[in-house]
Amino acid sequence: MTDTEPALIALDWGTSGQRAWLLGRDGGILDARDTGRGLLTTTEDVDLRDPRAKAAAYESAFRQACGDWLTACPGLPALASGMVGSAQGWADSGYRTVPAPLDFPSLVPVFHRDGVLHLVPGLRIPSGDDPGDVIRGEETQLAGALETLAHPGGSLTVVLPGTHSKWVRVEEGVVTGFTTAMTGELYGLLTAHGILARTAADPVADDAAFSRGLAAGRRSRGLATEAFGARPLVLDGVLAPESLPDYLSGVLIADEVSHLLHASETHVVLCGARELCRRYAAALAERGVEATVLSEEITARGLWRIATAAGLLEDRLERTLKP
Amino acid sequence: MTDTEPALIALDWGTSGQRAWLLGRDGGILDARDTGRGLLTTTEDVDLRDPRAKAAAYESAFRQACGDWLTACPGLPALASGMVGSAQGWADSGYRTVPAPLDFPSLVPVFHRDGVLHLVPGLRIPSGDDPGDVIRGEETQLAGALETLAHPGGSLTVVLPGTHSKWVRVEEGVVTGFTTAMTGELYGLLTAHGILARTAADPVADDAAFSRGLAAGRRSRGLATEAFGARPLVLDGVLAPESLPDYLSGVLIADEVSHLLHASETHVVLCGARELCRRYAAALAERGVEATVLSEEITARGLWRIATAAGLLEDRLERTLKP
Repeated sequence: MTDTEPALIALDWGTSGQRAWLLGRDGGILDARDTGRGLLTTTEDVDLRDPRAKAAAYESAFRQACGDWLTACPGLPALASGMVGSAQGWADSGYRTVPAPLDFPSLVPVFHRDGVLHLVPGLRIPSGDDPGDVIRGEETQLAGALETLAHPGGSLTVVLPGTHSKWVRVEEGVVTGFTTAMTGELYGLLTAHGILARTAADPVADDAAFSRGLAAGRRSRGLATEAFGARPLVLDGVLAPESLPDYLSGVLIADEVSHLLHASETHVVLCGARELCRRYAAALAERGVEATVLSEEITARGLWRIATAAGLLEDRLERTLKP
Repeated sequence: MTDTEPALIALDWGTSGQRAWLLGRDGGILDARDTGRGLLTTTEDVDLRDPRAKAAAYESAFRQACGDWLTACPGLPALASGMVGSAQGWADSGYRTVPAPLDFPSLVPVFHRDGVLHLVPGLRIPSGDDPGDVIRGEETQLAGALETLAHPGGSLTVVLPGTHSKWVRVEEGVVTGFTTAMTGELYGLLTAHGILARTAADPVADDAAFSRGLAAGRRSRGLATEAFGARPLVLDGVLAPESLPDYLSGVLIADEVSHLLHASETHVVLCGARELCRRYAAALAERGVEATVLSEEITARGLWRIATAAGLLEDRLERTLKP
């Protein structure tokens, strides 16, 4: 067997997107696809109360993405993480309760015409007096981050910025807690609807406006006040309407960092879209915190790590050896 | 002349509503109308770039609201505050720069077939290093509040909760500063769009959920985190989906109060919709701050006070004495 022999189909299958990788025996990427066929597209015309129709829709989308790989290598193990494992997904893969290590011995299988697709469970903090929280998909990025980092031991804060940013605490490879901030969603709502959307023009990148927003977001007057402040700045001609989105981005990110960064932190790991990580790194640098930035592509590494730890590849090996 | 003789037409004319009062010589309310005909309705089919068409639309809406009063008492002075005095309104009445006392000697007149309607200017803090801010309409509520309160002297914080809540500092009758929090707008956006809207059911009043939200909003994890927390509470069955809006209301109001209440404050004046004032009073009470609640109806008193201070009624008196 060589490194170019396919060993695993790995999918990052979320609400609005689907990425698929064909991985070799050393975990290297042999082929990659970004189909954009997330849960919303997959189930667009499907009655979700009909389990057979739902399963057929997911199987069809899965085959469209990876059917040729399976045809070329029948019985190839397949693993997916993300919302495909939620109650609205192909099957509910459940959650592991935190504290939890980042291996997943009990993956949830869904059976299809050509074999089995394994689903990665999410992580969960149950609600008590405080609200709980869940993660789905990010656990795989975390597994990939630990695989990628040179020193995975000790204590680590991993920040995954996005629609719902996650701040994850990892101690000796075990997730001990996490917090969600709906910063990206607030940015989306405020730039799509309401008075700031009406005040803004089509966005133009403006680092100075972003920095100015960061400074405002670090003040103590609160998000609801500092976000609104973008409007008088535009009305007074101090901020260009097309720079309002970057100003607002600064306000929101600084507010998130102010609240969720622990005072003792000197270093965090950032994992997400490049431009977003750049913004968070800038907000962190202003507080004297260094950031190691990992690309979202570590999801493929995470899927590889989880598949290896769960023995998915050994099954395949055994089947190959004893036909 | 008796108290029942009309002396002033007073209008609170905002973006989405229009209320009109016929006031007697002592400022008492002789008649009141809530037409709902705000700026949006008034200018619905009007090309706002055409000044004549715009003026005709406003005049028509004004006559629909008060035409019979004017017919009965020709030449009756009329005064309006709110967005009718904005750039999108009948005419731009401008702003007084803070610090500013709450009398308005230079009202802006708009002339119509039956006479003159005077417009109240707003208040403005120009943007410098910090974002500035503007008030339009609330200056009239403030004037009404000072008229209503037994001890208008000294220092006073007046909170006007709403879509854009205003926290106003008044010292010896002079507005020395104010701050806006877009709390109501955030509540509207989060309950109309996005993940919390999808998690919530049709709202049912739930004071316990509101109190729980207040407690969450007082924590230091930030608005973007505590608002999101409503979702796991619902998913975990701890919060009913129809109670999510009241929980979120608690989170947002507590966050606003946490940021904008000065530590030294022991008493504030609340002015706004009754149910909203009740919520803010509860949030303030938890911090040991007492609130005096004034109804929104003080707008009529504010218009009366401004008209009196500007000598509008004397004009009328003179005209009556020298026909």
